[in-house]
Amino acid sequence: MILVSEVGPRDGLQSISTVMPTAAKFAWIDALVAAGVREIEVGSFVPAKLLPQLADTADVVAHARRHAGLTVAVLVPNAKGAEAALAAGAHKLTLPLSCSETHSLKNLRKTHAQVLDEARAIAALIAAQPIGQRPHFEGSLSTAFGCTLEGSVPEAQVLRLGEALLKAGCDEVGLADTTGYANPTQVRRLIRQLWDALGQDKLTGIHLHNTRGLGLANALAALDTGLSTFDSSQAGLGGCPFAPGASGNIVTEDLVFMLQSMGLDTGIDFDRLMQARQVLAAALPGEPLYGMTPQAGLPKP
Amino acid sequence: MILVSEVGPRDGLQSISTVMPTAAKFAWIDALVAAGVREIEVGSFVPAKLLPQLADTADVVAHARRHAGLTVAVLVPNAKGAEAALAAGAHKLTLPLSCSETHSLKNLRKTHAQVLDEARAIAALIAAQPIGQRPHFEGSLSTAFGCTLEGSVPEAQVLRLGEALLKAGCDEVGLADTTGYANPTQVRRLIRQLWDALGQDKLTGIHLHNTRGLGLANALAALDTGLSTFDSSQAGLGGCPFAPGASGNIVTEDLVFMLQSMGLDTGIDFDRLMQARQVLAAALPGEPLYGMTPQAGLPKP
Repeated sequence: MILVSEVGPRDGLQSISTVMPTAAKFAWIDALVAAGVREIEVGSFVPAKLLPQLADTADVVAHARRHAGLTVAVLVPNAKGAEAALAAGAHKLTLPLSCSETHSLKNLRKTHAQVLDEARAIAALIAAQPIGQRPHFEGSLSTAFGCTLEGSVPEAQVLRLGEALLKAGCDEVGLADTTGYANPTQVRRLIRQLWDALGQDKLTGIHLHNTRGLGLANALAALDTGLSTFDSSQAGLGGCPFAPGASGNIVTEDLVFMLQSMGLDTGIDFDRLMQARQVLAAALPGEPLYGMTPQAGLPKP
Repeated sequence: MILVSEVGPRDGLQSISTVMPTAAKFAWIDALVAAGVREIEVGSFVPAKLLPQLADTADVVAHARRHAGLTVAVLVPNAKGAEAALAAGAHKLTLPLSCSETHSLKNLRKTHAQVLDEARAIAALIAAQPIGQRPHFEGSLSTAFGCTLEGSVPEAQVLRLGEALLKAGCDEVGLADTTGYANPTQVRRLIRQLWDALGQDKLTGIHLHNTRGLGLANALAALDTGLSTFDSSQAGLGGCPFAPGASGNIVTEDLVFMLQSMGLDTGIDFDRLMQARQVLAAALPGEPLYGMTPQAGLPKP
């Protein structure tokens, strides 16, 4: 079974200027769960003045937790964010570590060493939780395929940082093509290298963008290599395919269509996913929604 | 080396209502050749009243033939079209045979048996040409992955029609996802089945659409399986990704970026390909042009 991890409520909403009302987030998440989505990154514990769009993350976590069987994931930039995430009861915490140190300094204002310090502090906070209530802790290797500031990122550096994240206490690492630089050959090579270095159970997921149109081809390359978790954003929210530098997560609807047409089980019902898209559209009038399959419709059986 | 076969001047232009002036076609083809494109489907020998956009195909063939090393390809719907193509001096003739007979009747107004009769007649016309001046003859298995009228198309039928096209005198067959129904698993399976049935040298190319966003993923699947020729259309001309039923050929720029980023040689210079895009844009003011890589730009080296 393939896990499609919906990141729209975090990565999508943080990329648009409109602030979605909390009640609308609840309705969207409910609709996604009704469609069969089993993991949702519902927000990010960052200062509200930096990302007012996600200021209600604690409330959204509390709401999402009501859905039995749903993994409620959040992004945390540091130990302070992790404290809030633990207090809210998130099931999964993702700490981004940008493989490009220049990007790390610009994005989190932290060196690699400082981010790894935060990782250690977060691991300690998690370890202090009662058994059975410890969230899963993922270190996300962002800009792993290249950086708009540094250009190419040495693969040896990605491996080194992957090892360091695990040593700092992450349960696993994830690969993220933050900049839409990845190509299928690179995706396969980097997964295999990380598996060799870290063990196959320490990398199961990938976060892809469709900035240059290669998002689903890269997803196919990762799938063929053996990854089983794919981040995507409903309606490609927040990513404008016609604007340089746009977020441009791969579109959940197109990803789900691809996986299901290949005979793979995602647990997601496409028609109900389209209903969730309607809930999203109603909550964000005027916001461009993307995706080819929603426009073309499913093939005739 | 991978062959990117540009079909914009045929499949792109036939899908838009604007008629591109003949001189503009010349300039566009010249710019494509300058970018390193080695095969271009420059038009179709169909009655001008059906496709006025392509009424000048004979002139376009004559112009394109001036480029040494360029394979000048055309589509022919029947033996009459093939006669015109031979007279014009095309290097490659493609006859579409829709695997869905319903679609064949609607598109060419011919049954499978009638299209195969045309194939035999075309093969005879080609055989009557002097040695060294016989164009390559491809039978294109269109709607091979499914049909908007019939729904799924049995793979046994695709194999049977592939065999029949070769028996009728085609040098090779091509696979075409006319409707944008294909998925990567199906692409791999059908290529392998055709190879088993026909021999690996009898199928080298595929024509993909991006109707549901899977175009490049399907291209990757075909590439991994071992195909080496890929049809694509500059700027996705004629295909509107946001309109159901649109043509939606895969975009040459994105395909070339994918292949080259994977370290594969296409012989095409991306910057010059972008110059050809500008020539196209100038010739068709107001016409929507697609492609993600042209908007985002190449990654930083």
